[in-house]
Amino acid sequence: MSNELKYAVFGSGSWATAIVKMLCENQAEVGWYMRSVYAKEHLIKEQHNPSYLSSVEFRLEQLKLSNDINEIANYADVLIFVIPSAFIYSELEKLTVDITNKTVVSAIKGIIPETGLLLGEHFHDTYNVPFENIAVIAGPCHAEEVALERLSYLTISCDDATKAQYIANALSSDYIKTKISDDVIGTEYAVMLKNIYAIAAGIAHGLGYGDNFQSVLMSNAIREMKRFIKKKHKMKRNINNSAYLGDLLVTGYSLFSRNRMFGNMIGKGYTVKSAQMEMSMVAEGYYATKSAYLINQNNKKKTKIHIIDTVYNILYQGKDPKKEFIKLADKLD
Amino acid sequence: MSNELKYAVFGSGSWATAIVKMLCENQAEVGWYMRSVYAKEHLIKEQHNPSYLSSVEFRLEQLKLSNDINEIANYADVLIFVIPSAFIYSELEKLTVDITNKTVVSAIKGIIPETGLLLGEHFHDTYNVPFENIAVIAGPCHAEEVALERLSYLTISCDDATKAQYIANALSSDYIKTKISDDVIGTEYAVMLKNIYAIAAGIAHGLGYGDNFQSVLMSNAIREMKRFIKKKHKMKRNINNSAYLGDLLVTGYSLFSRNRMFGNMIGKGYTVKSAQMEMSMVAEGYYATKSAYLINQNNKKKTKIHIIDTVYNILYQGKDPKKEFIKLADKLD
Repeated sequence: MSNELKYAVFGSGSWATAIVKMLCENQAEVGWYMRSVYAKEHLIKEQHNPSYLSSVEFRLEQLKLSNDINEIANYADVLIFVIPSAFIYSELEKLTVDITNKTVVSAIKGIIPETGLLLGEHFHDTYNVPFENIAVIAGPCHAEEVALERLSYLTISCDDATKAQYIANALSSDYIKTKISDDVIGTEYAVMLKNIYAIAAGIAHGLGYGDNFQSVLMSNAIREMKRFIKKKHKMKRNINNSAYLGDLLVTGYSLFSRNRMFGNMIGKGYTVKSAQMEMSMVAEGYYATKSAYLINQNNKKKTKIHIIDTVYNILYQGKDPKKEFIKLADKLD
Repeated sequence: MSNELKYAVFGSGSWATAIVKMLCENQAEVGWYMRSVYAKEHLIKEQHNPSYLSSVEFRLEQLKLSNDINEIANYADVLIFVIPSAFIYSELEKLTVDITNKTVVSAIKGIIPETGLLLGEHFHDTYNVPFENIAVIAGPCHAEEVALERLSYLTISCDDATKAQYIANALSSDYIKTKISDDVIGTEYAVMLKNIYAIAAGIAHGLGYGDNFQSVLMSNAIREMKRFIKKKHKMKRNINNSAYLGDLLVTGYSLFSRNRMFGNMIGKGYTVKSAQMEMSMVAEGYYATKSAYLINQNNKKKTKIHIIDTVYNILYQGKDPKKEFIKLADKLD
């Protein structure tokens, strides 16, 4: 069954490009929607993405490329969305094809800022996609290492284990190991929250805190993540599995992480605006911070989320990073 | 009460030197036993340890230095042992003073290789020190960052919370935050096990595995550590607290880590012997690997400890790191 399904990726950033690469290891043809006409033309001419993971060469006969989101949505059975959360809402406004019976996979790393919804929730509400047709791809997996074919692990979450497994199979290869999970909501929140903690790690580094502090921060972060997710979706989950803790660590510790880099600039004294201007890529955690803060505000009983609150105060309330981290340090243990 | 107690540190490595520095922030006088006559003479002449953390200046009038272990054991009420596990057994053979009523604190990072016992167990068996007089200092805390006065967190474990608290107070300062715990055995095992995982992280790095793999390795390591400790001492503990997870991360990810460095050399193709000769410091994890492996072998029902087994096979069975890690990678998730 899985062999006959058609897969498509929506997005043209580094993570989208990495997922197309993974699928190309197994699929005869992969659909690929990219908004930019230039990116598509470049790909056709040069066989690689002009801006992201440009070392990865594609065989054009394996790709069904289009700038028309509906053409690709129509083409595929499994639609994998990898558009930055800041742009997903407006991109999806173009989507008019009936996708009720298709499988929708979220590989975005945040919440839709306009609605505060997870991607799965958005598809359920707007397109009547049943929850058993919604899946999530989680790391720990930096796209840059997929390009280098360095061994990486993915977790595919879906309420329907059969679907999770065929998506997992479609992504598996010599350098990609997969596992499946039934914690769709938890995985999607984890993917989003880790970016906030990566910003916190970056700020700490920028302020001059060392490795000892960093490890305490991460140890508090995973406990905070566990509390946050439990409030949204209570179920038995081991927060130390790779999809949660692993993903937090790769983002919090890696030099590839854009969120950590963004935080580092804030810690070093850049304003939010100037740090954003310096960076050509969107730091997802910036939007995630506000979403997570608001979600907790709207909880009937709030959870203790000292790290998220601290990042929120710095990014959105103009508070001084140094003073905020001195207060935070007293709350960590 | 705590103010009147006399503290002493036994050992002259970097962690011992860091603990003396912490105590000097609070205590009028600190006892310090060091085996080396040269180190003591150098300290008296130059006010710093000749070999470790030599940037840290001491005020001599605050130190009671001696090369006689019994003199210092006699002098102090709280004895903090920071001697590498490979040498602790022979060092302790010199100890003849009655220490039954003193508080014995372990800051060693391993098991006594000759006996397979934790330091606390050794003091209980050999010197009749009651368990409520035995405490453990755990990180995450690289000595090098203490020297730089970078904010760090310690956990002091003791069955007797009052004792844990006064030791914590004696170590606390502007740059050292402390918490207490009653999980003496769990903390001591965690301190030992993390060094094995740091070797594994180093081997992976040396073999060319990337950040994605590293985070999966750490996520598996903390689950393995939880299982291992639970077998030895079942109690309610949050393995994600700083003393366990934080300490694992600082050791597994930090460039300061000697164990990671040792592993890295093994991964790059050094033999165990040549890697040990290259390094002037003892990699505690080397001894810990054998101890942990044997402890699990002696468990009635073995725990799955794939990472420890892998490191054991490489360090003690002469197995090829590359092949062993390919096998390990299949067992991680």
